[in-house]
Amino acid sequence: MINFNIKRDTLICFGKGEISKLGDFIKSKGYYNVLLTYGFGSIKKNGVYDASIAQLKNAGVKIFELSGIDPNPRIETVLKGRNICKENNIDFILAVGGGSVLDCSKAISIATGYKGKDEDFWTEIIASFKGDTIEKVVDVGVVLTLAATGSEMNSGGVISNLTTKEKLPISSSLVVPKIAILDPSYTFSVPKNQIAAGIVDSFSHCLEQYFSKENNFIPSDYMLLGLMKCLVQNANVLMKENNNYIAHANLMWTATMALNNITGAGKNGDWSVHFIEHAVSAFYDITHAVGLAVLTPYWMEYVVKDADNLSKFVALADVFGIDKNGISEKELVNKVISECRKFFDGLGMPDNLQKVGAKIEDIDGMVVSSLRGSDKIGNFKDLYASDVKNILINAFGK
Amino acid sequence: MINFNIKRDTLICFGKGEISKLGDFIKSKGYYNVLLTYGFGSIKKNGVYDASIAQLKNAGVKIFELSGIDPNPRIETVLKGRNICKENNIDFILAVGGGSVLDCSKAISIATGYKGKDEDFWTEIIASFKGDTIEKVVDVGVVLTLAATGSEMNSGGVISNLTTKEKLPISSSLVVPKIAILDPSYTFSVPKNQIAAGIVDSFSHCLEQYFSKENNFIPSDYMLLGLMKCLVQNANVLMKENNNYIAHANLMWTATMALNNITGAGKNGDWSVHFIEHAVSAFYDITHAVGLAVLTPYWMEYVVKDADNLSKFVALADVFGIDKNGISEKELVNKVISECRKFFDGLGMPDNLQKVGAKIEDIDGMVVSSLRGSDKIGNFKDLYASDVKNILINAFGK
Repeated sequence: MINFNIKRDTLICFGKGEISKLGDFIKSKGYYNVLLTYGFGSIKKNGVYDASIAQLKNAGVKIFELSGIDPNPRIETVLKGRNICKENNIDFILAVGGGSVLDCSKAISIATGYKGKDEDFWTEIIASFKGDTIEKVVDVGVVLTLAATGSEMNSGGVISNLTTKEKLPISSSLVVPKIAILDPSYTFSVPKNQIAAGIVDSFSHCLEQYFSKENNFIPSDYMLLGLMKCLVQNANVLMKENNNYIAHANLMWTATMALNNITGAGKNGDWSVHFIEHAVSAFYDITHAVGLAVLTPYWMEYVVKDADNLSKFVALADVFGIDKNGISEKELVNKVISECRKFFDGLGMPDNLQKVGAKIEDIDGMVVSSLRGSDKIGNFKDLYASDVKNILINAFGK
Repeated sequence: MINFNIKRDTLICFGKGEISKLGDFIKSKGYYNVLLTYGFGSIKKNGVYDASIAQLKNAGVKIFELSGIDPNPRIETVLKGRNICKENNIDFILAVGGGSVLDCSKAISIATGYKGKDEDFWTEIIASFKGDTIEKVVDVGVVLTLAATGSEMNSGGVISNLTTKEKLPISSSLVVPKIAILDPSYTFSVPKNQIAAGIVDSFSHCLEQYFSKENNFIPSDYMLLGLMKCLVQNANVLMKENNNYIAHANLMWTATMALNNITGAGKNGDWSVHFIEHAVSAFYDITHAVGLAVLTPYWMEYVVKDADNLSKFVALADVFGIDKNGISEKELVNKVISECRKFFDGLGMPDNLQKVGAKIEDIDGMVVSSLRGSDKIGNFKDLYASDVKNILINAFGK
């Protein structure tokens, strides 16, 4: 295992009606000027916008707004938010939405502490992975409307640059949300395909951390396995029933726990599938989770061939409810991969890259983008350019 | 499930050598006068005292000491610590030790914010469960030397009063440790019986939270099951090998995760066994974990008889590695209870109350003490006075 430092000072307010805590929290912090960020207005239909505004008014703060944040939030929006913050002395950014709105808000927060010019922020901070070098940023909070990224209790976000065809992480302990309102009923009106995406996203977060070089630090492994099992068991009911509170609650808390550094502590996760997917979605602007669902089983098939031991794959059997009795280890591993594919299929995910519009001539470009200047990615299994290329070719389909 | 609010702002520094972060942390907080608390000097033999002092000196603070804190820390020691704090303007209490030293330090911290007289603190705050009404307390931190109570990342502690024969919890969000140095190598020199006690303690924390009325919030259940499995799998090697770093690391992080509100979120745990055990150990001053190990299987046998459903017991089979194939549900549940007893037996724990010196004539007194003025305890299963008495009689042995 590896040493780790964690501090997660997010005030989690989980459950129906918990938004009632937001106003008092803002008062207690003494914020004055709040930037409310959101996407394309679905929060105005389901009452979450009004409930958030009521809390801000109750706290007596001045409210500014930035709407229209894209599903893969873009650097241009980050810079727009930065300017609003600077012009209006914003001291709190309240993201009302899913992971994209929150990620964009975190990047805006980091940008407020950046001394340089707008046009240098991408190269000097994001593309240089230097988000954590910025000392003073604006506090961030979130009213979550989609269970997926886990951004509500972690330090990271992902920002896209369509010009450079890059989709890169940005991270700083200073942008871990100070408050996260997690009301499962706010996710009732989320379209099925987005709920499915959230399930895949959370599952992938668990899997990426589970597959590490360090296989002896078992509390993290066992918690991650439990969270994956929870996702598999909840998927069906979430796909069938719109307003099942407990199923939405199970997904929401699992998504938060799936990527908050606590459950993955002590391990260097693999993250290869994420690296490759970021390349794919930077090329085609597809939904992150769709890319993950396509790529994950192909990654499994590729790395299982020469895995030092199969025990990590074998332990996944329980996640999918596979009976281990009277079945060889090799058959069990194959069953795990096929059940994983079935799980994604049941969520309406495509099973190859052609189905998401990928072009074979882009593969070399995606390989370069996946590697981000390194000669290899991965921890459970090192992947070099040729390996990434092979996985992409396999995933391309026949 | 129930709504929940969590904020855990403990800076966790986990791993070998992590004490090197302590001095800078203290500097960054600007503390001046630090009270170092510890037990009976084992930390002077294993180097932890010297390492802690070196960090405090590096931070340039004035150091005060309170030693001799008992395994079941007593109200008299709390008040002694309170006076040291008041006389010396202490602004940080650094507990160097296990859960008892830390619990005592938390109670001292709460006592520093109490405006009343020493002699009223027990009745007005501890026995009235009003620790959380005190507004301003001294910050607490810990260098942990025993993996057991989880106190390093939670708001609670337990204090004993030998005069009133009470052992009561005290809790305040303000005493959640600001920093926890968790170096597994610091637990190498812990005697086997104390390591065993730590395993039982952590296991019981998981079990008490796992057995709740709310059986549909599964992320917490599955994480708790994973943590229990981790304890069962690590127990043997910890009993056989003194210096197995990874086994100690597994235990230390599991113990922390077993009672930090995060893994048990959304559920009202049962806690009956803890209530009854606190009564037993207030009568005989026995090790908390010894009482838990004796009582837990008797509690299981008592409540399983009329449990609405056996699924929670069935799911424990995996924790103990029991093969479920070709075995009836009833047999499986019996096997779970017998394996639980075997697990405690393997840790050198006694299996009835006579072996810990209990007297049959004290049972009525222990029933009263268990109920703490209520007519019942428990959440998975309500236990009235007659139930508690039956469990104690069964646990008394033949």
